[in-house]
Amino acid sequence: MRMDELIEKKRDGHALTESEIRFFIGGFTAGEIPDYQVAALLMAIYFQGMNRAETARLTMAMAESGDMLDLSDLCDYAVDKHSSGGVGDKTSLVVLPLMASFGAPIAKMSGRGLGATGGTLDKLESISGFKVNLSESEFRRIASETGLVIAGQSKSLAPADGLIYALRDVTGTVASRSLIASSIMSKKLAAGASGIVLDVKLGRGAFMQTLDEARALATAMVQIGVDAGRDMVALLSDVNQPLGVAVGNALEVAEAVSTLRGEGPADFHQHCVEVAAHMLRLAGRGERWTELAEARAQADRVLKKGAALEYLRRMVEAQGGEVSQIDDPRKLPKAKLRYNLHARESGCLAAVLADQIARATLTLGAGRRTKEDAIDHAVGVEVHCNVGDHVTAGDLLMTIHANEEASLQAALEELGAAVEYSASPVAPLPLFHGLVDGRAL
Amino acid sequence: MRMDELIEKKRDGHALTESEIRFFIGGFTAGEIPDYQVAALLMAIYFQGMNRAETARLTMAMAESGDMLDLSDLCDYAVDKHSSGGVGDKTSLVVLPLMASFGAPIAKMSGRGLGATGGTLDKLESISGFKVNLSESEFRRIASETGLVIAGQSKSLAPADGLIYALRDVTGTVASRSLIASSIMSKKLAAGASGIVLDVKLGRGAFMQTLDEARALATAMVQIGVDAGRDMVALLSDVNQPLGVAVGNALEVAEAVSTLRGEGPADFHQHCVEVAAHMLRLAGRGERWTELAEARAQADRVLKKGAALEYLRRMVEAQGGEVSQIDDPRKLPKAKLRYNLHARESGCLAAVLADQIARATLTLGAGRRTKEDAIDHAVGVEVHCNVGDHVTAGDLLMTIHANEEASLQAALEELGAAVEYSASPVAPLPLFHGLVDGRAL
Repeated sequence: MRMDELIEKKRDGHALTESEIRFFIGGFTAGEIPDYQVAALLMAIYFQGMNRAETARLTMAMAESGDMLDLSDLCDYAVDKHSSGGVGDKTSLVVLPLMASFGAPIAKMSGRGLGATGGTLDKLESISGFKVNLSESEFRRIASETGLVIAGQSKSLAPADGLIYALRDVTGTVASRSLIASSIMSKKLAAGASGIVLDVKLGRGAFMQTLDEARALATAMVQIGVDAGRDMVALLSDVNQPLGVAVGNALEVAEAVSTLRGEGPADFHQHCVEVAAHMLRLAGRGERWTELAEARAQADRVLKKGAALEYLRRMVEAQGGEVSQIDDPRKLPKAKLRYNLHARESGCLAAVLADQIARATLTLGAGRRTKEDAIDHAVGVEVHCNVGDHVTAGDLLMTIHANEEASLQAALEELGAAVEYSASPVAPLPLFHGLVDGRAL
Repeated sequence: MRMDELIEKKRDGHALTESEIRFFIGGFTAGEIPDYQVAALLMAIYFQGMNRAETARLTMAMAESGDMLDLSDLCDYAVDKHSSGGVGDKTSLVVLPLMASFGAPIAKMSGRGLGATGGTLDKLESISGFKVNLSESEFRRIASETGLVIAGQSKSLAPADGLIYALRDVTGTVASRSLIASSIMSKKLAAGASGIVLDVKLGRGAFMQTLDEARALATAMVQIGVDAGRDMVALLSDVNQPLGVAVGNALEVAEAVSTLRGEGPADFHQHCVEVAAHMLRLAGRGERWTELAEARAQADRVLKKGAALEYLRRMVEAQGGEVSQIDDPRKLPKAKLRYNLHARESGCLAAVLADQIARATLTLGAGRRTKEDAIDHAVGVEVHCNVGDHVTAGDLLMTIHANEEASLQAALEELGAAVEYSASPVAPLPLFHGLVDGRAL
């Protein structure tokens, strides 16, 4: 088999076979196929796409390029979730303890990623002492003892994906649906869950701008999972405006804690209930929680009762974090400067632009522009308003948490363009735009 | 400027600016831009193409990545020719001495290339002692003293093209019209001619199979030359059957000599007259030879008189070759085995397939499959028949010159499929399918 012939085959729009994909992934991972040939193949894939079977093969080959986590000693049926990332998305911090409280143990590997705020790991690192780098034995021990562990992704998990992603990042081949889907799913398949709920974000504050794009990506990922024998569902959720109030690492941990106490913002509470209900349905496998409506009601009830907070607390303790910061989130890192932004005019809010807010939180230092950037856990923005709200000039819209006068000023300018007013009433934004159910694919 | 942004720009179908192309070519030639990024860009160019201005910019940047040859001390106006390569194409060996005999000095850098037989340099190396590697001062001295020199291409000529071609060769990006056109033309522009006649081959024995493809490539190359201020014309010539009789290095040198004596095969003689007439028209620049019909008549007359052979002889002498082999081509390398192939049936020849004959000469060892292959100068095939000929069973069709019994047998099998018969009359193939005139673009 010759790599240049594989490139030409894909360039001309033909599907690659199982053995061709194994040859390419195996050869690249082993350092035998040079990166310039892989770069050319990736660009050919960008233009020609991959069909369902090819995408499944590519994903499986990447998943199997390293260790395949076996969670069967932990539970009969492991569930996992993955969010494609959106402004203010701290769902994992609420839903995973909630799932643990239902007796569905969660052993999750998470990422950091670039963007407006850090990833789940960065958010958890707002908690003093919290350790995300665990050995596999620590990871397994904490999962079985506390029912919940969230750690950094092991380097031996889907190493081919890491190599290919690094190349895509510098060769203009990130934005390929097949490659995005296979990259995400290779790590999920290697991470050992039997059922996976995907939370695919769309809108101004997400990578995918339109429902069509998001649905296509969600479908590709669900198909991959189904083809690999997993139970799959993808929710299509809106992030034209931020999810919840808090955008910023420590602020989001505090909001997760209040949501686990039953006191979270309505939209975020509702979002968590929906994600948890789908995870419960998968975990139930026709026994418990198969009825989504019942699962929703249970999740809502447990959240409101505050019963799941204990699981977050136990995990923080097990991973070396300062539990007093969970008991009293005011002890989390605090920014030096606080500034309230008020409504300029009266009217109905036509837009609370998640992308503008993302820019501002990046300016404040809450996120990363490049992998090397350090994160300021304390800074961020609290967004107290939603699209459709009626406001009067002078009402509080946002609270900015900053550590520098200069970044505060710059963020303020960006936030000035984040809110749009309308004289006539505006409908609130939906939380979800539907779902892609693996049982139908 | 960032290379990943350039890749994305081209990927999305936008044209690259002059400074972007200079950045990419300069950075790659200097080893500052990694080959994986260039590979991705080349694949994006494969899919999105380049417009006329972009292609001209790319070509000029590649031409100027090394030395730009200045031939102004040799003559006021230098003409050059380039053939895209076809089975039996030994045109340069006849046309260049012919041009020199008209007082148009020729200082040509030529290539080797892959294919059924070698390139012009390989053919010349059939002559004992002939030296193709000349220093620039030798090259200039021979050109000015004898009016004709043909040497290997200097490594300092368009080095960016060499680097890019090597990468295209292994990344499935050879077959891009813009890249083919700019690769050929970058070397032509750097080689210093003011007027260039392109001989673009099409048909079974050429890279381009159809008239549309050949015309599109010819147009792209003529446009590049015109945009760089050169006088340009491209002839579209047929190689569905071999050009002339001889296919094989020494055999072709012998045929060039007989053609320069006015005794060449009619089709090849005619082809040389046409190419020379266009070169004369360009070299005349409104003074002499502007009338193509007059230039044709003159070229035909000089060839028939045998007056141009002296210029080939002088060049061979100046470049260290054994002139007795020009004076008596029977002294050129001879193959050990000779086999006559006869007509199996009577009828009209419907096809004399140049690609099959190419396969057979490769099998005999006359050409190269990979750059490292050695060439056997003595072997080859003489094709005594043309499409449209009426033959009787038993007529001589081809003579095979081989050095090994095994390769002779293998070549015979390939040649058996090279001739097709028809019961009804078949029209002869045209020599040319039109031209692309730079004055009209």
